[in-house]
Amino acid sequence: MEAFRIQERLILASGSPRRRDFLAVLGLAFEVRVTDIDETPLSGEQPADCVARLARKKAQAVDQPSAWVLAADTVVALDGEILGKPGDEEDACAMLMRLSGRWHEVWTGFSLFRQATGELCTKTVCTRVRFLELTPELCRAYVRTGEPLDKAGAYGIQGKGCFLVPEISGSYTNVVGLPMAEVLEALLHHKVIALMGEL
Amino acid sequence: MEAFRIQERLILASGSPRRRDFLAVLGLAFEVRVTDIDETPLSGEQPADCVARLARKKAQAVDQPSAWVLAADTVVALDGEILGKPGDEEDACAMLMRLSGRWHEVWTGFSLFRQATGELCTKTVCTRVRFLELTPELCRAYVRTGEPLDKAGAYGIQGKGCFLVPEISGSYTNVVGLPMAEVLEALLHHKVIALMGEL
Repeated sequence: MEAFRIQERLILASGSPRRRDFLAVLGLAFEVRVTDIDETPLSGEQPADCVARLARKKAQAVDQPSAWVLAADTVVALDGEILGKPGDEEDACAMLMRLSGRWHEVWTGFSLFRQATGELCTKTVCTRVRFLELTPELCRAYVRTGEPLDKAGAYGIQGKGCFLVPEISGSYTNVVGLPMAEVLEALLHHKVIALMGEL
Repeated sequence: MEAFRIQERLILASGSPRRRDFLAVLGLAFEVRVTDIDETPLSGEQPADCVARLARKKAQAVDQPSAWVLAADTVVALDGEILGKPGDEEDACAMLMRLSGRWHEVWTGFSLFRQATGELCTKTVCTRVRFLELTPELCRAYVRTGEPLDKAGAYGIQGKGCFLVPEISGSYTNVVGLPMAEVLEALLHHKVIALMGEL
């Protein structure tokens, strides 16, 4: 049996298979609509502001008035600077060597939005992440797996990159791309889902 | 391409699919041998001592002299008390309500052992975990999924229980059952694996 049941039509505005997996593992029925928006941070924009703005923008870009839309954006930040996806292997190596042996932050913003009623809830969650001290050889071996190339900050905490992170402080699912404790709370609060067994 | 290559025969002495997945995702070739040992904590035994003892015992129970054996044991501890697997749904609910809204500890011990040479390396890693504040209704809804029944501490941080943990302090993979940064370091140190591309 599942713990939750869906009460409203829910759309996930994200192409991330990891975000999909989180909702799917909870047994929630939802649709996926991927919108194409410009994800470039504004000049001087703080990580928290950036992910909140982009999550809201992604949610509002889905034109399904009566449905609830869940959207999210995740960035990796080092000393307040947002790290994007690396352009090539050399770029990925340079990014990983900057993270090596240090703490950085992963910010996710998520929005839950219903166009018909104008209801909008946006939250941001930050997790601190400590990176392994990397040798240039270990860095290159990881980069050659190809995993860093489509990842913000040049690593994935799931998959082959799991050994790169000995320690985090905060939400793990937030680093993966969707802070599930906070998302579930928002879905329950707005009655998009209900506990199984409750009226 | 993978980041590591195996240099010695490696045996994982664990039936846990989650531990198997961590090694498999790194592309390491290994065999699985599950040994049957008594996992009951000794009277008054501290969590760190217990997981180290059991990991060592599991590793030494595999009779394959020339291979390296990796074994691990994980426990959930609240106020120094080790919580086992719940006996039934009522027991699971009681355990989860004790964890509700509080921090607890997850300890994993792992051993890397080669019988032929007597080489033995044992480490323990602790992660602090903050649990969601649960209502009895939310607790029951989760317990009815059946997930808690075969889990120490009555929850799984992977899968349906992902929403139960808003925050951890320490290694995530350690909570799942194998602290991967530390395990990889031990495998490299003992030359059980090497970086791909190195002689």
